[in-house]
Amino acid sequence: MAIFTYDQLYKFTHDMLIKIGCPEVHAQIGAEVLLSADMRGVDSHGVARLSGYVRLWEKGRINTNPNIRIVHESPSTAVVDGDGGLGLVVAPYAMNVAIEKASKAGTGWVSVRNSNHYGIAGYHSMMALDHDMIGISLTNASPLVSPTFSKERLLGTNPISVAIPADQEPPFVADMATTTAANGKLEILQRKGKDAPEGWIQDKEGLPTTSANGVKDGGALLPLGGDREHGSHKGYALGSIVDIFSAVLSGANYGPWVPPFVAFLEPDPNPVGEGIGHFFGAMRVDAFRPADEFKSHMDNWIRRFRSAKPTPGNEKVLIPGDPERELEEQRRKDGIPLLDPVVKDLTELGEKFGVKF
Amino acid sequence: MAIFTYDQLYKFTHDMLIKIGCPEVHAQIGAEVLLSADMRGVDSHGVARLSGYVRLWEKGRINTNPNIRIVHESPSTAVVDGDGGLGLVVAPYAMNVAIEKASKAGTGWVSVRNSNHYGIAGYHSMMALDHDMIGISLTNASPLVSPTFSKERLLGTNPISVAIPADQEPPFVADMATTTAANGKLEILQRKGKDAPEGWIQDKEGLPTTSANGVKDGGALLPLGGDREHGSHKGYALGSIVDIFSAVLSGANYGPWVPPFVAFLEPDPNPVGEGIGHFFGAMRVDAFRPADEFKSHMDNWIRRFRSAKPTPGNEKVLIPGDPERELEEQRRKDGIPLLDPVVKDLTELGEKFGVKF
Repeated sequence: MAIFTYDQLYKFTHDMLIKIGCPEVHAQIGAEVLLSADMRGVDSHGVARLSGYVRLWEKGRINTNPNIRIVHESPSTAVVDGDGGLGLVVAPYAMNVAIEKASKAGTGWVSVRNSNHYGIAGYHSMMALDHDMIGISLTNASPLVSPTFSKERLLGTNPISVAIPADQEPPFVADMATTTAANGKLEILQRKGKDAPEGWIQDKEGLPTTSANGVKDGGALLPLGGDREHGSHKGYALGSIVDIFSAVLSGANYGPWVPPFVAFLEPDPNPVGEGIGHFFGAMRVDAFRPADEFKSHMDNWIRRFRSAKPTPGNEKVLIPGDPERELEEQRRKDGIPLLDPVVKDLTELGEKFGVKF
Repeated sequence: MAIFTYDQLYKFTHDMLIKIGCPEVHAQIGAEVLLSADMRGVDSHGVARLSGYVRLWEKGRINTNPNIRIVHESPSTAVVDGDGGLGLVVAPYAMNVAIEKASKAGTGWVSVRNSNHYGIAGYHSMMALDHDMIGISLTNASPLVSPTFSKERLLGTNPISVAIPADQEPPFVADMATTTAANGKLEILQRKGKDAPEGWIQDKEGLPTTSANGVKDGGALLPLGGDREHGSHKGYALGSIVDIFSAVLSGANYGPWVPPFVAFLEPDPNPVGEGIGHFFGAMRVDAFRPADEFKSHMDNWIRRFRSAKPTPGNEKVLIPGDPERELEEQRRKDGIPLLDPVVKDLTELGEKFGVKF
């Protein structure tokens, strides 16, 4: 493991994005979105993923100079076509459209087609906070998840992020896959050679397994809940709603047709839409009640929950967003640790493209 | 157990609502909403609950002739004040406001304060379907649920319902508590004298328990996921989002301040808002893409998922809403079964108020 500063990783990512043809403004926002994952501790969605985006670009599956545009709209809605661009760039564009719509109509809702992986969901929802708006960010993703009772992988980990502003307290920021556990947690167990808890995965026959390699071996991640008795049909429904809002509303690929992130797997030759899909929402708080009133009640909500009596063995009750914010403060001070294989991967990437790492 | 026709139960409920002072139009819609729960198999939210509403009215905690009104609005939003009315009546009013807003602005979003228990969430979201709109229905509820790591009960079972229209296929209708299991399922286990599965409840010390009486004895239902390792922080975040959208946006009571449904428990003497809160959304499908296109892709989505290869021992993959719709078809034909204690309760209620059951 080695430690890097934010600026080091930002510069490398920015320069790599320029190298593969991004305009300057896209390289800046793309690097900022990618790095926000490293800062918030969602390491699987940060610079570790950069070479994956580059491989997709090499295959002609990412357009680094896209004409991102609104193709349909109403006072409070829009559909954005990402023109095959980096999701890291398409998503902030679309979220800004939602924010602009909300500033006039009270709320704004944008469904996006023809995009690619957009980094961490929470970056985009949090864009609404500075405007005294609630932000919502959803995306579909390559199929790794089996619905309840299904042997087949039909859904991605399809995250939901909701960011809600407060006044004196930091904002409420939920950012979660609609599965029991994110794929990144399985990768950690694989590296350690440990088993996974029950309820996280099933094997390729559709039976419960605790092998951390279960998904790699043709099995699937399980929807939040794990099994029917513990409510997996609810996690399945949530992942489905994310898929439908992101892709059926916009005209992107949905369900098992979502193109894989990894370049070595080919997209379905008979797609049902274009690229992958996202969905964004922005709600002006003062379209409901005065913003000051709302934010002061949010402070009260947050303080009441954070001060709840904890269960034995636990120190305190957390508010969604607390762990990520604490990690961000720490990493801003101490730097971002990267695992050796990630450092090796980025070094080789830099050498190949003549960009100093 | 005895079997009743829809019309028998509808007439009794309607006549009881008239008896406690509802105007005719409110008695009609109130009875329809309540009965829809019995028809869809959510027996805990149907006529079994009628005497509970009546007891709240006897305590002066429900206003049966409310002046329900919009108190704040923007092109795509509104806040509705339910004037202490039956949620069964306030909710359809507010959902209609959302639908009207959507017909003009593309989407409509309504947060509601000063209301009471609104029956099943799915009735209200499904109101959008006939308008080629996606419907969303959320509500907070009396605190029975402990956040992850909390010994205290701070949230209700706070359901999420999303209804999405299709073309030839029946609609996609998710309707779920944000807990591992609904309270109604615990009651069934209590009656049978059986234990609850792990991950459903904790005892009053905040420790896991399988006693089906755990919640009655001062414990709590657990958020969807059950424990931290299985993602309960996600269920907690979802229940929190429902609470905030329903009550902090509207000015209703939130978290532990939500007034109890049972009349023998008094509301908090220092409320943070008025009554309980709901949140409704309606999105016009053609504010995103032509409705025909959307609905034909929904048919394709539904057929692909329903025809997925099932896991061993399971017959097929279900679409959210399938079980409730099948039960509704059956009960429309065969009638609605009520348990003996419910029949006794309704008989006594009718005798007390001079309404024939």
